[in-house]
Amino acid sequence: MGEFPTVTDVARVAGVSRQTVSNVMNTPGIVKADTRARVEAAISALGYRPHASARRLRTRRSSTIGIRLDPMIDGISGSVLDRFLHALTEQADARGLRVLLFTATSPEDEISQFRRLNDGADVDGFVLTSTTADDPRTEWLLEQGIAFVTFGRPWRSDDFTAPRHPWVDVDGYSGLHAATRAQQDAGATRIAYIGWPSPSGTGDDRRRGWHDAMLERGDVSAEDLACLEVVTADGVDQGAAAMQQLARTAGGIDAVLCASDALALGAMIANPARVPVTGYDNTPIAAAIGLSSVDQPVDEVAAAALELLAGEFEGKSGAPSDPAPPPFRMVTPRLITRQFAAIPRDSVPVNALVSEVSR
Amino acid sequence: MGEFPTVTDVARVAGVSRQTVSNVMNTPGIVKADTRARVEAAISALGYRPHASARRLRTRRSSTIGIRLDPMIDGISGSVLDRFLHALTEQADARGLRVLLFTATSPEDEISQFRRLNDGADVDGFVLTSTTADDPRTEWLLEQGIAFVTFGRPWRSDDFTAPRHPWVDVDGYSGLHAATRAQQDAGATRIAYIGWPSPSGTGDDRRRGWHDAMLERGDVSAEDLACLEVVTADGVDQGAAAMQQLARTAGGIDAVLCASDALALGAMIANPARVPVTGYDNTPIAAAIGLSSVDQPVDEVAAAALELLAGEFEGKSGAPSDPAPPPFRMVTPRLITRQFAAIPRDSVPVNALVSEVSR
Repeated sequence: MGEFPTVTDVARVAGVSRQTVSNVMNTPGIVKADTRARVEAAISALGYRPHASARRLRTRRSSTIGIRLDPMIDGISGSVLDRFLHALTEQADARGLRVLLFTATSPEDEISQFRRLNDGADVDGFVLTSTTADDPRTEWLLEQGIAFVTFGRPWRSDDFTAPRHPWVDVDGYSGLHAATRAQQDAGATRIAYIGWPSPSGTGDDRRRGWHDAMLERGDVSAEDLACLEVVTADGVDQGAAAMQQLARTAGGIDAVLCASDALALGAMIANPARVPVTGYDNTPIAAAIGLSSVDQPVDEVAAAALELLAGEFEGKSGAPSDPAPPPFRMVTPRLITRQFAAIPRDSVPVNALVSEVSR
Repeated sequence: MGEFPTVTDVARVAGVSRQTVSNVMNTPGIVKADTRARVEAAISALGYRPHASARRLRTRRSSTIGIRLDPMIDGISGSVLDRFLHALTEQADARGLRVLLFTATSPEDEISQFRRLNDGADVDGFVLTSTTADDPRTEWLLEQGIAFVTFGRPWRSDDFTAPRHPWVDVDGYSGLHAATRAQQDAGATRIAYIGWPSPSGTGDDRRRGWHDAMLERGDVSAEDLACLEVVTADGVDQGAAAMQQLARTAGGIDAVLCASDALALGAMIANPARVPVTGYDNTPIAAAIGLSSVDQPVDEVAAAALELLAGEFEGKSGAPSDPAPPPFRMVTPRLITRQFAAIPRDSVPVNALVSEVSR
């Protein structure tokens, strides 16, 4: 025990050369059937495995990180997490780490996946996305002492002073603040915001960026500001409907900022006055149709996540308790400005978005 | 050897109860520091691992499949492979299989990843995407006797009679044939095609679907048909340029079919006459802007791939040679018809696609 069988052990038990064992593993077609059967019996009896698995058992390291693949809710807003997964996998490969994917239907289901993968020593740690306040997943991982990092802050009051766990996030507040400033600098005063219902960690953060930049400039009173805001679920149709509502009730607007590119695309469609529209996430759609957008630098997020996770691996196998609070990284988004002209309302009917005929 | 240390072994070496060992693994916070240190030392000395890893070693099964994550070339055409990955991960989870991701910069690099993952017993088999004729990856896997299935046919003359390996593909020929027929049935006779340079397995297959449907109907002579075709690299700008070329040289067109949604989006932008445009892959962009498109049913592809791979697992561990040729599945795509009106050329400037200003 503590040692693992080697090719030499297999060769001895099977009564063949080490080269023959290697041939059975790698080019079985060239080995006679009865010899192959004898070698396979020896491999099975000894529980022989090539080096990596044995090393995994010895070192208690799988060199693998687990991440949940979020369901494809819509192809627009969800694409930033796909971009993050690409960046994470590429940078993990460069560090000799592998990425194991799983799906989960709920936080509880995700926790049972954590348990399974951790019990099986399939992964060394986890990268979590889409954090929420009082996230049951992070609570469970903390209790178990399992290494993890989140893309998304813990959404608690001590996020920046004594965070509960290592995290990386993109500063949506500064993204919306900069987007608002860019419109103000271009001469806009009545800048509307189409966002998501509160409470939403990311949504509330983005909204505050717009809200604070508006109050700081002082072009619009706090009372008037309420007329410039529409709250809605995410989606293209919802963005179009919100834009129509602003046209009816906002008393004139110079620009619109949105919490997502899906909302922004809808706002562009229902935008006969060609008011500038800015989205969030810089999705392929924004690039394709010429929509300004706030870009989340997923490469930076992935690099920071892997660095913090590597620190966790060291911490978990080293001293039992580290008095310093866990580290975190706030990544600043970039405003991508595109010279777009809005799509006239009559050219792309909104009903095209929902009426599909298959044959 | 052949046996693995158990919780009982750890408890005996550490001089504690089995429950205490379990506590150290699962709720270390409740164990006294010196007891925990003793248990951890015993775990480390014995090379103890919870059950799944030991079972993996005994059974020689990792219950994991490997797949290369393709680089994000552009967010439009590449999204179908992301959709496939989501479908594959969800259905693999349902079958108790995990998906291990890796990246590779070339077919040779991908082969060295195959070797590493196979040698390490990290995966039971592979799912390959983006097959080419004389694919060095499939040749290598066949030589090694490693289980795999491809999303993409082998692109050989015996694909349907005696394929080299199990494969699943989407019938691009019938997708373009149906899309051509749909336009013909709506009264179009001069139907243009914007596609990729030959040789391209998928591109040539899609082109033939249009070509045959055009010749079958006989509205256009074979000579005239050549004027209705533009060959270009993939991309939005390329689609717009191809549409402009058709306007100059095709002598009037009633409809345009494209090898991708990226080309189709470009064609829609440079489409002042509002000719119907059909893309391929039914990407989020097609849904968002109301573009007809040929949809690849990735759920069906993923289900078929996992089924064929499961058959390979049985084959590899069962009889050494199976005389029947490997199985394959051809999945029929669906034509999604949307009632779009083209985006007028002056409303979305093409230069917006390339001019980005960050701040």
